[in-house]
Amino acid sequence: MAGLRHMVGVAAAFVIASLISPAAFADDLPSWNEGTTKKAITEFVSAVTSDGSPDYVAPSDRIAVFDNDGTLWGEQPMYVQLAFVIDRVKDLAPDHPEWKGKEPFKSVLAGDVKGVAATGEAGLIKLLGATHAGMSSVDFSRIAESWIKTARHPKTGRLYTEMVYQPMLELMQYLRSNNFKVFIVSGGGIEFMRPWTERVYGIPAENVVGSSIKTKYTDKGATPSIMRLPDIEFIDDGPGKPIGIYTHIGRQPIAAFGNSDGDFEMLEWTTSRTGRSFGLIVHHDDGMREFQYDRNSHFGRLDRALTEAPKRGWAIVSMKDDWKTIYPEKSP
Amino acid sequence: MAGLRHMVGVAAAFVIASLISPAAFADDLPSWNEGTTKKAITEFVSAVTSDGSPDYVAPSDRIAVFDNDGTLWGEQPMYVQLAFVIDRVKDLAPDHPEWKGKEPFKSVLAGDVKGVAATGEAGLIKLLGATHAGMSSVDFSRIAESWIKTARHPKTGRLYTEMVYQPMLELMQYLRSNNFKVFIVSGGGIEFMRPWTERVYGIPAENVVGSSIKTKYTDKGATPSIMRLPDIEFIDDGPGKPIGIYTHIGRQPIAAFGNSDGDFEMLEWTTSRTGRSFGLIVHHDDGMREFQYDRNSHFGRLDRALTEAPKRGWAIVSMKDDWKTIYPEKSP
Repeated sequence: MAGLRHMVGVAAAFVIASLISPAAFADDLPSWNEGTTKKAITEFVSAVTSDGSPDYVAPSDRIAVFDNDGTLWGEQPMYVQLAFVIDRVKDLAPDHPEWKGKEPFKSVLAGDVKGVAATGEAGLIKLLGATHAGMSSVDFSRIAESWIKTARHPKTGRLYTEMVYQPMLELMQYLRSNNFKVFIVSGGGIEFMRPWTERVYGIPAENVVGSSIKTKYTDKGATPSIMRLPDIEFIDDGPGKPIGIYTHIGRQPIAAFGNSDGDFEMLEWTTSRTGRSFGLIVHHDDGMREFQYDRNSHFGRLDRALTEAPKRGWAIVSMKDDWKTIYPEKSP
Repeated sequence: MAGLRHMVGVAAAFVIASLISPAAFADDLPSWNEGTTKKAITEFVSAVTSDGSPDYVAPSDRIAVFDNDGTLWGEQPMYVQLAFVIDRVKDLAPDHPEWKGKEPFKSVLAGDVKGVAATGEAGLIKLLGATHAGMSSVDFSRIAESWIKTARHPKTGRLYTEMVYQPMLELMQYLRSNNFKVFIVSGGGIEFMRPWTERVYGIPAENVVGSSIKTKYTDKGATPSIMRLPDIEFIDDGPGKPIGIYTHIGRQPIAAFGNSDGDFEMLEWTTSRTGRSFGLIVHHDDGMREFQYDRNSHFGRLDRALTEAPKRGWAIVSMKDDWKTIYPEKSP
């Protein structure tokens, strides 16, 4: 009986705790230094979630969209997915002796990134066709998942999934605990991300928007399957991001988080909504703890959006000044 | 103090109630007659949700997909969206005097459904271009939403949103209360459905998959917007349904619900998964309370799937025998 009463007491405490606003608890963003950026985030969340606030937004409309490369995890010295492509080409090369004399494979096998870049979009499509197509959806998921479990960053030696940004993990959790729906909207391949986003970011597969290749359903063979074809279906970058959001989510977000000019239109569309909205740019200005780059970078170029952010009221994160730490301590 | 103690007591009761399995409560499917179909549903849900069950499926993988027309609401004497198209053409006709002599508009204005059908896919694309394109995403949502709020069925005089199937509303709620994620996967237009699916079905916009037209982001003009273009982007029917599911959800469902041959591949793919799965076909065999049709119907033809359902272990709902009631009593 005492046991039951204790259980009821504990249960009641939980219920009462859940009735109190999260703001009454300890810091939700412990890796963020106090300052204008953190204050802008918490003030926005408070404004759109507080009952009676003139800026109140119903939970079903609290859509927050995050770019991935350079916003949630690192993108230097190259996009993680490009490292995956290179490893895949190397793995498959023994079955393709002709690749030694054929671009873009020749440059990939020689480790010549500039040579790969010189093959342009046509080269990229050949690489995607060779590494991302020609198998079923299930097989591709397994390939991507098994690669990401062991692949490590060339400089830090960490798993790529340990090179996610701790302050951004906290930010996504903070938004979710305030009944936001959190989505990834990335230029990266949608099916490259989906196998691990729930484990690493807490974002389930259906909340991932990304670039895609064409697919075809077939019920020939032992089991019906979705086959991946060597053609681009959709590029979720620049003006493609609002389209990707409209297609997948069907609503205009109220908050958007990015780090490069490829996120410009996503932030522009989000912050043009009627009613309060929030735009934020992560600025890679910490050459000591991470990488320092912006206007002239090959990966994650941030030029127009950096110039326009102040005029448009978008917050700019200085990784150097705003973040106490960059990476999580333990493997997520 | 007594007030506080009472509050704690009530709160504790809620918590304890939530710890008890839904199965311990009253019937979750009150509009379903006892019988093999209802039993097949509840046995499946119990098998995939009970801890320690050999068929247990983690909540994140409990994806259930529902066709809309003929599965969640009526599709006779024509698809609801076709009634919308006809009303739109009539509304717009005063600005298009040339339509009087031009197909497919001429047949639409004359109320000649066969004449419209005779114009085929080319006619349909013209109708979609005239009624679903040429405006922003926001404007189209408003048009669809305002139409659905007042449009009524020609035979019953009910709002179309009151011609949803009560047993299916209960089924979706039953699945959600068992931590399923419930999606619509419809051949209908995705943006025609999204404005009202949350209100009517409890399915938020981002959980709707459907056919779509092309769109374009523009930041010319006063506010950035997504403009709707007069070209088909994707047809979410037949073999398109597994592709739509893969694109939007990124996982193979464990349960699929349909009513026509357009749902065949969706059920086929779903029930080919490794591990337990569930397929169900709603058979329109109740000419008294609803409409009776299957193998020879223009809208919602059910032929191959009806023949193959028993071989493939798909449940077949007899609307006549399995459902106590068809429509909800009150406006949802």
